[in-house]
Amino acid sequence: MEKTIKVVIAGPRGRMGREAVKLAEETAHFELVGVVDHKFGGMQLSDLEGFTSNAAIYESMTECFTETNPDVLIDLTTPEIGKKHTRLALEYGVRPVVGTTGFSESDLKELEGLTEQKGIGAIIAPNFAIGAILMMKFSKMAAKYFEDVEILEMHHDQKLDAPSGTGMKTAELIASVRESKQQGHPDETELLPGARGAEFDGIRLHSIRLPGLIAHQEVIFGGNGQSLKIRHDSYNRESFMSGVKFAVEQAMKIDVLVYGLENLME
Amino acid sequence: MEKTIKVVIAGPRGRMGREAVKLAEETAHFELVGVVDHKFGGMQLSDLEGFTSNAAIYESMTECFTETNPDVLIDLTTPEIGKKHTRLALEYGVRPVVGTTGFSESDLKELEGLTEQKGIGAIIAPNFAIGAILMMKFSKMAAKYFEDVEILEMHHDQKLDAPSGTGMKTAELIASVRESKQQGHPDETELLPGARGAEFDGIRLHSIRLPGLIAHQEVIFGGNGQSLKIRHDSYNRESFMSGVKFAVEQAMKIDVLVYGLENLME
Amino acid sequence: MEKTIKVVIAGPRGRMGREAVKLAEETAHFELVGVVDHKFGGMQLSDLEGFTSNAAIYESMTECFTETNPDVLIDLTTPEIGKKHTRLALEYGVRPVVGTTGFSESDLKELEGLTEQKGIGAIIAPNFAIGAILMMKFSKMAAKYFEDVEILEMHHDQKLDAPSGTGMKTAELIASVRESKQQGHPDETELLPGARGAEFDGIRLHSIRLPGLIAHQEVIFGGNGQSLKIRHDSYNRESFMSGVKFAVEQAMKIDVLVYGLENLME
Amino acid sequence: MEKTIKVVIAGPRGRMGREAVKLAEETAHFELVGVVDHKFGGMQLSDLEGFTSNAAIYESMTECFTETNPDVLIDLTTPEIGKKHTRLALEYGVRPVVGTTGFSESDLKELEGLTEQKGIGAIIAPNFAIGAILMMKFSKMAAKYFEDVEILEMHHDQKLDAPSGTGMKTAELIASVRESKQQGHPDETELLPGARGAEFDGIRLHSIRLPGLIAHQEVIFGGNGQSLKIRHDSYNRESFMSGVKFAVEQAMKIDVLVYGLENLME
Repeated sequence: MEKTIKVVIAGPRGRMGREAVKLAEETAHFELVGVVDHKFGGMQLSDLEGFTSNAAIYESMTECFTETNPDVLIDLTTPEIGKKHTRLALEYGVRPVVGTTGFSESDLKELEGLTEQKGIGAIIAPNFAIGAILMMKFSKMAAKYFEDVEILEMHHDQKLDAPSGTGMKTAELIASVRESKQQGHPDETELLPGARGAEFDGIRLHSIRLPGLIAHQEVIFGGNGQSLKIRHDSYNRESFMSGVKFAVEQAMKIDVLVYGLENLME
Repeated sequence: MEKTIKVVIAGPRGRMGREAVKLAEETAHFELVGVVDHKFGGMQLSDLEGFTSNAAIYESMTECFTETNPDVLIDLTTPEIGKKHTRLALEYGVRPVVGTTGFSESDLKELEGLTEQKGIGAIIAPNFAIGAILMMKFSKMAAKYFEDVEILEMHHDQKLDAPSGTGMKTAELIASVRESKQQGHPDETELLPGARGAEFDGIRLHSIRLPGLIAHQEVIFGGNGQSLKIRHDSYNRESFMSGVKFAVEQAMKIDVLVYGLENLME
Repeated sequence: MEKTIKVVIAGPRGRMGREAVKLAEETAHFELVGVVDHKFGGMQLSDLEGFTSNAAIYESMTECFTETNPDVLIDLTTPEIGKKHTRLALEYGVRPVVGTTGFSESDLKELEGLTEQKGIGAIIAPNFAIGAILMMKFSKMAAKYFEDVEILEMHHDQKLDAPSGTGMKTAELIASVRESKQQGHPDETELLPGARGAEFDGIRLHSIRLPGLIAHQEVIFGGNGQSLKIRHDSYNRESFMSGVKFAVEQAMKIDVLVYGLENLME
Repeated sequence: MEKTIKVVIAGPRGRMGREAVKLAEETAHFELVGVVDHKFGGMQLSDLEGFTSNAAIYESMTECFTETNPDVLIDLTTPEIGKKHTRLALEYGVRPVVGTTGFSESDLKELEGLTEQKGIGAIIAPNFAIGAILMMKFSKMAAKYFEDVEILEMHHDQKLDAPSGTGMKTAELIASVRESKQQGHPDETELLPGARGAEFDGIRLHSIRLPGLIAHQEVIFGGNGQSLKIRHDSYNRESFMSGVKFAVEQAMKIDVLVYGLENLME
């Protein structure tokens, strides 16, 4: 039987936070011992609409830590607050699993020092979608063997930016392991401008936007007589939760700071 | 049992012609009674490398028709010759199935007159790939119910033009049945130019070019909470032959000129 | 400008009903003039949690019809109640759009008589997902040209039955237009039983069940050198609403009973 | 500039052999210095139909090695002959790249001893399709993070066995890293037998067989709110050649025996 991990969640009322609360309740070896919110201190979660957990709500993180003595803090707040919480958690000997971005090089250096000093693990993860992380990891690996690749990312038509962040990140990872290559035929012609998509270091990216779609990406490698396709479909926010669960479990096993879940995945 | 159809093939040594010879030999109710070539008259096909049929080779089409009395001429030559052959076939009461392009409006009008006069069918088909024709037909039908659509066409990286002819044709067919619609978010931004692909009447087209690929197309429709995808994969030239077979069979059943196989398919 | 269609919804608090209320509110030329429920008569929808519409709630359908004088009734109740509502609507000159199943041959005959008598349209639709209906329609059409086909349907792993209803329906439609054909190699062997899937009139069906999936189906046709794939992805209940909208609009244009949306789609 | 690798090919007239000859000619830093065949000794390849290379043909491998002094032997013969050739190559200080199967544990042990003694590399690869190897490798990796997976393999309808060898191999690799899990709902029912496919350690396999298809496989992982799909398409024999090229290059860099290309790929 797995040892129970005592968890505190900061930001329980946000969209990710709600999912995390659900995760903590549904995972047999997780115990939600408290939540940190800037409101509703002294109440318990089940007093608020949409919650059933009777975990206590704290407005002060230090008070929460002192009273509940958690193993792990899951922080799903905002960049500025996330930073403060991470530092505080480490000082109190609580392993932080942080989903916010905005950490600078010097922030990370400082936090690394703290983990070392305390001898406990910490995980900062800008992306918790394990499937998307694997897609990027595999793409980087495949790029060593296939020098031609195109990225197709598909989202609902309310998305403003093209290509998507994950699409760009994937292209960068691929570019980091292969020599620059201008793909396609040297004399190819666009009869309609844009047909061949966007270009990043010779890699082509195509952004599809349609109502009904959610968040999907295909990375297609082509070589002599074959193609290899890696596709990730994200249907809803639940997709992030297996990454949070994994991070909480890993945080208990490591004694360093890890930035990015991909660095914990073999 | 199906009645045997006596077939003559013009252009037997071309790439399509060779496949057509194979088709005629392998189809139980087809009989290859002769071939027309500008060389090798008086020999039989099996005298040439790569053939086993003992159909006679004629340099003169009229001689061929007179001696073999065929039901159907399959013409896979060139636009200029194809036109002449079509006319000749009709005059001799042979139903032409023609795979060449380049017929003008007035050519078609003249040939229509001839079919009427002779009371026999004729089929001119710029595209024999039944799967591709169905893909286009279905796309046109679906466009009445889904107003958002993107076209992805994928070919080997030796292809020079983007988008492909089939991609463009599909976009035109869709545009012919829906109101113009600028797709995507009105405020969407391309962080890298070309990310959102080419645009035709508001429809987006994306051309993927990778070694290993052959000829593939996906038409993706998106609507509330759903998407509908129609994909055609063409792996080799054989894909054209079921269209040729279908056309030969249809030519026996009709007594008018039909341009485009889609007009014979329900 | 489109003429406003006055709509009554029966069963507004069910899962489909809620979506229909949203649809009626969001569609410019629809006006929700009342809802029929077995509870809450005299209140208005906005008195209930999750609704903003101030449409009046009626426990009596006849009262609702008399007071609101609607053009169309959208019925999303249960088979038994749905039948009664349909009859009542026709008697009051209201065009019914009914999403329930369970109509017998004689029920349909009787309702046909009523539509004729009243000179108004009625639509009974066991399936409102336009994308799924098109997938089935296209599959039936393609089966005339490709005699080999396999059906892959993919659902979440909480689904109990395999194959799915849509999968079975698709196989039946295909079987209705092609000659029976035992597919695959006559001597093929299953090294593991079940590998080749289920069999219906020679067609093979494969049911994939995985957590995360929602409701997806691929119909793959194979022929010489090519394949044709039709795929439908249903991501959420919204996918039904474009079908409801279409049905309401069509109900205004016809003066007969139509069973199945496919019979309204060209 | 890369150093030229002098290559001998055994079995040049087989289907794989012909591709290998083409590869050796088209690769700038490969030099085809001779071929070994049981016929045509004393002639050169270009004397035989379908070849342009003027590499000399040897019936004796030892003579070939002595006269041409190659770096690498590519052996594409038969299991029995392949074994002898491998041993002989190592004895002559030539690095073998062997595509045949049928090596026993004791064979491998003996060959390992020989590589050690000679201080040169040797590669035995039952599968040269790099894309397929990556698909299996990625599947094994993903199985650590997604416990639910189904395998769909698609081949032409002339294939006799189901599931395919690659499908079975993939299932075994996945089973080797995850705990046994009976997938799907515990109460699921097959309305048609076989709908849920074959079962291997709880993993489901589905074999699609259609004319036109070549060799394709999809491995689909499902988790909360997401799915991850890895697909390999093999269109023709060329797909093996990038694996042969990779193996030849790697053979020059290692000084041990490696069985299976996957063990050379990071």
